[in-house]
Amino acid sequence: MSLLRPDSVAVIGASSDEHKVGHLILRNLLTQGYKGNIYPINPKGGSILDQQVYASVSAVPGPIDVAVIATPAMTVPAIAEECGKKGVKALVIISSGFREVGVDGRAIEDKLRRVVERHHMHLVGPNSLGFIRPGIGLNASFANRLPPAGGVALISQSGALGDAFIDRADVIGLKLSLFLSLGNKVTMDECDLLEICEKDTETTVIGLYVEGIVDGRRFLALAERIGRTKPIVLLKGGITEQGRAAASSHTGALAGSDAAIEAICEQAGILRARSTRQFLDLLRTLSQQPSLLSDRIAIVTNAGGPGVLATDAAVREELILPSLSSKNEAKLRAVLPPSSSARNPIDVLGDALADRYEHALTAAAQDPNIDGALAILTPQIMTPAKEIAETIVAIKDRHPLFPILCCFMGGESIREAVSVLHAHGVPNFSCPESAMHIFSSLRRAKISVAKRRAIPMNAKRAARARRILQAGGKGLLNEARTRSLLELYKIPLPQGQVVKTADAAVKIACSIGYPVVAKISSKEILHKMDVGGVAVHLTSDAQVRSAFARITKSVKSKAPKARVAGVLIQQSLPPGSEFIVGALKDETAGHLVMAGLGGIYTELFKDTAFRVAPVSPEQAYPMLTQLTSWKLLLGLRGKPQLNVDALARLIATVSRLSVECPQISAIDLNPVLVTAKDLTILDAKVIVEA
Amino acid sequence: MSLLRPDSVAVIGASSDEHKVGHLILRNLLTQGYKGNIYPINPKGGSILDQQVYASVSAVPGPIDVAVIATPAMTVPAIAEECGKKGVKALVIISSGFREVGVDGRAIEDKLRRVVERHHMHLVGPNSLGFIRPGIGLNASFANRLPPAGGVALISQSGALGDAFIDRADVIGLKLSLFLSLGNKVTMDECDLLEICEKDTETTVIGLYVEGIVDGRRFLALAERIGRTKPIVLLKGGITEQGRAAASSHTGALAGSDAAIEAICEQAGILRARSTRQFLDLLRTLSQQPSLLSDRIAIVTNAGGPGVLATDAAVREELILPSLSSKNEAKLRAVLPPSSSARNPIDVLGDALADRYEHALTAAAQDPNIDGALAILTPQIMTPAKEIAETIVAIKDRHPLFPILCCFMGGESIREAVSVLHAHGVPNFSCPESAMHIFSSLRRAKISVAKRRAIPMNAKRAARARRILQAGGKGLLNEARTRSLLELYKIPLPQGQVVKTADAAVKIACSIGYPVVAKISSKEILHKMDVGGVAVHLTSDAQVRSAFARITKSVKSKAPKARVAGVLIQQSLPPGSEFIVGALKDETAGHLVMAGLGGIYTELFKDTAFRVAPVSPEQAYPMLTQLTSWKLLLGLRGKPQLNVDALARLIATVSRLSVECPQISAIDLNPVLVTAKDLTILDAKVIVEA
Repeated sequence: MSLLRPDSVAVIGASSDEHKVGHLILRNLLTQGYKGNIYPINPKGGSILDQQVYASVSAVPGPIDVAVIATPAMTVPAIAEECGKKGVKALVIISSGFREVGVDGRAIEDKLRRVVERHHMHLVGPNSLGFIRPGIGLNASFANRLPPAGGVALISQSGALGDAFIDRADVIGLKLSLFLSLGNKVTMDECDLLEICEKDTETTVIGLYVEGIVDGRRFLALAERIGRTKPIVLLKGGITEQGRAAASSHTGALAGSDAAIEAICEQAGILRARSTRQFLDLLRTLSQQPSLLSDRIAIVTNAGGPGVLATDAAVREELILPSLSSKNEAKLRAVLPPSSSARNPIDVLGDALADRYEHALTAAAQDPNIDGALAILTPQIMTPAKEIAETIVAIKDRHPLFPILCCFMGGESIREAVSVLHAHGVPNFSCPESAMHIFSSLRRAKISVAKRRAIPMNAKRAARARRILQAGGKGLLNEARTRSLLELYKIPLPQGQVVKTADAAVKIACSIGYPVVAKISSKEILHKMDVGGVAVHLTSDAQVRSAFARITKSVKSKAPKARVAGVLIQQSLPPGSEFIVGALKDETAGHLVMAGLGGIYTELFKDTAFRVAPVSPEQAYPMLTQLTSWKLLLGLRGKPQLNVDALARLIATVSRLSVECPQISAIDLNPVLVTAKDLTILDAKVIVEA
Repeated sequence: MSLLRPDSVAVIGASSDEHKVGHLILRNLLTQGYKGNIYPINPKGGSILDQQVYASVSAVPGPIDVAVIATPAMTVPAIAEECGKKGVKALVIISSGFREVGVDGRAIEDKLRRVVERHHMHLVGPNSLGFIRPGIGLNASFANRLPPAGGVALISQSGALGDAFIDRADVIGLKLSLFLSLGNKVTMDECDLLEICEKDTETTVIGLYVEGIVDGRRFLALAERIGRTKPIVLLKGGITEQGRAAASSHTGALAGSDAAIEAICEQAGILRARSTRQFLDLLRTLSQQPSLLSDRIAIVTNAGGPGVLATDAAVREELILPSLSSKNEAKLRAVLPPSSSARNPIDVLGDALADRYEHALTAAAQDPNIDGALAILTPQIMTPAKEIAETIVAIKDRHPLFPILCCFMGGESIREAVSVLHAHGVPNFSCPESAMHIFSSLRRAKISVAKRRAIPMNAKRAARARRILQAGGKGLLNEARTRSLLELYKIPLPQGQVVKTADAAVKIACSIGYPVVAKISSKEILHKMDVGGVAVHLTSDAQVRSAFARITKSVKSKAPKARVAGVLIQQSLPPGSEFIVGALKDETAGHLVMAGLGGIYTELFKDTAFRVAPVSPEQAYPMLTQLTSWKLLLGLRGKPQLNVDALARLIATVSRLSVECPQISAIDLNPVLVTAKDLTILDAKVIVEA
């Protein structure tokens, strides 16, 4: 597209004042290798940096592909209009003073949006640092360096952060296909940039820094598709507030501020960086090294200590260090000195020259047991660090499908060697633990994302469900309507009935059969336990009577203002484990569905998994396997395996229910008693949007 | 001591061959500023590097404080003998070829040990890289650079790793009082070095890399004492294997390989680094910055994005960002431009010069709400990074008790500024997340370690306990003896009795009163649940009969070879939560005591805390507060608070029991039912060493 490969760029607001942005951008365009036409524009005319200045866009003789605008905000809509008339294809607006400064700025921004939409122009910004295409020497930004050219597209909502990354790029060997600062995202947001990067042949890996995602569902769909061919790394800043509805449901309380982003990353196979350092480490490695095909790697080191630390880190990252094949091990043993170790980690000893690294790494690259290697070097007396770096680069060239990471440790003694590695696309890490973490990310990047299939909706059922919800009004849905709603979706509830007297309680208990449980029934009591509203395992008429009395008394004292429908008497259930299944409406991603450990431990361990709804039972399965409580479902300590399929189906059903009823703000099924045979919902809560 | 401040150093094995260690060490001694006498020693005589060479130690005219030995291993014992006779005070043995090469080497090492002990010499090594005292220009190692002088003593079991750290020191602003490579630790180990560092006035912070701790109890006692005045940072390499006893107990299975080290670090207030990078970051920061007195810090930044990421990281690290006092905020607002933010994080905007950093950081340093600050800088158009660095250094000098960390982000644009910061003891971090993590460590370093008091033993009771254990023989102690042992220590067990028939079971159940539980009783069945050996909440004679039949049948089929004593019928207990308390014998640290979440979730969440035994109830308390399950003890969701005191007392008792009976290899009390009123041990297992 013409934004990324413009034949001509105009700088509107070009200035002869060296301190002004309009000067810096022009200088960057002129001096860093861009071959297209460059048009400085300023009503004052004259010349800047030996270039003829045009008084306006319309005064430019040829066509303009991209106009970079660095004039005061209030002038921008009119300039944009002029650009539209001229046929400019894309605007990059550096100027600030829009939405970010308040009401007046927002009005200018709205005007700008209308102009841009009318003329079908692309718009980057405003309040953007600009963009850079290192491959064609195009620096249309006020970052003063052109980063090395390579495969990483770096898209940043924060211009200054992007600028710092660019400044750091050559230190760490990061090579860029594109840098673009999103600014205020008036028309182009992270989704549009994903689409642009998908089509850009220079880009092999996409790095995103965002503080918010405008449209979570579109982002998910795009990332799922694009991530299959171009890995996406996300650094997310900012903690968003949760709404009121969230606070009154378990699912909401467990969601934290981050559940939607986590869900999207899981579903789309996006690698999420936990720090800025990791973000850059992931980007440079993914763009330069192939994926790790298995979890089996080799460590080659000239020192014991770092080898030990690397081994510890491998164990933590769930990577394994198999021995070489006996043939390769014997071959390697024959060329290494006797006191070295040909076992994995391979210790080539402190006096190793390049030849030992060559032998060991080549053996690893050729070995059927090994799919990647970490080369560790400490600068010892005779260590020819630079020569070893060159050797490793040559091995990398011979074995392009074998990922090699380096950990050359030290300062001055390894500086030159690290430059060699970085120049040739072998990432070096200053500590073995970071390298090992990145290895495990290379592994995760490989594990392919399960394809999403369209999940059929049931329009008739959905209409009935919405009618039930509408009849119930806003807020917490009552017991009876909740039951109808769940029954409509064939979600299994225990036998039971709400009663108003102890005599009725006993009657119902006898008809269900002992043992039974008793629970307060009130729309106004969210957490029944908190007010002493629950009694379990009642085995006789007398116990039911006493529980009825105890519960009504406790609720009267602890929630005196709550209107109470009565006490629910329910069947007591066979042993099983308690899980939670829920749904929650999120601002950007729509409904999320959640599964996790239920009952009293829910809040304690927050062992939960979220996905953007709807999900199929097949897609719900990985939500369960990612839980720590997965082992509980498999049957811990001689207990039978629980009915995992039933739980996966329930998650899928709840996800569909939430999507079919957009007015639902939260659903809590907690606890869900999962037994070896089936499952039952012991308590359910549905909250309708206010 | 004369090792650290020698008046004279001899190099035995001095060589004119530039590639030999004996040459490198001599050159390092001669050229890096050491003012003492230097004696090269080699039977060949002559001169090396313009120094007269002596034929032997005895030929040296004056006294020798330290002899550095770099001759073949087999010659070392005789040379050591000669040194002893000469009155040499300390030997530093670089030579390898001792224990690490097998039986022959071990024999030489044993001989060496005897010589050294006979002559009361200090011994570093063998197989050491040597040692360095930067403050007096003394480099008695073959690391070729003298690191900058400062307060950090760096003690490393791995020479090469230490060498890499020294090489990196000036890049990251790490300044050393001492570097010493432990080597084979024949007579001097990490404990001896802790004692040496305690006395060394140059040392303010101690950094240790070890792969094993020789004497865990001595290490704990020393670290507890020394850590109060000199923070200790530990980087531990290597995963040790667990013994057989461990595998057959819950406590052992939960201990992992690392429980003793974790326990020691918790008890002694040692900061444990999770990576080599963090190790160096902690050392340089602790040696250069004061502690953080509270969790309240300010962020000052010239860019929004990194400020957002730093805020996110602060939240994760449990630090808070309070507003400045209203007076200071108003003052700051008056000098900052209108669109900047005087709220915390303080955004001084992209065009900030040094003055805005000065205003903002000074306001933070003077503010009663703020106890530390992170200064973030991204290199923007006009950012005078070096001048801002100088300003920060000046603020640091004016406010020596106010910790300031920096995060100048970028590459070339900030290189000079970072050098200024590091030269003046202000640590810079390349990413805000790392800086924030180190801030939280400064905070933890401040939280003082509870003083340990001597815990009284009861010799008479101990003798009786040991008799019970002795009578039981090796392996798992039977039900009856376990009961006697626990009763001796007043550890509360539920009422109950082992029976052999269903009739007897019903009789006991009636005498205890319903409900009851039934459990298989067999010395040979470790996990009763696994063989269907448990039935709970039996409420009638019929249920007891059916449970008895079910249990015996299931055990017969699932553990047909197990000898069975009968079925234990026990009282059923009031509601409460299940915990585990245990003890475990560790090779280096002796008995450890453990507390954690019990029952079925024990293995799932591994929510446990370990300490070196014995502990007092006061010391057991923090074990409980560090658990995720602590909230369970406090009373989750309207449940009453459980009896925390009783649980703390139980932990103390179990810790004493384990120490009083050294033959115990493991104790498991699991589950321990803790109720609001008291606690009961539902199942207990004691394993005696084989």
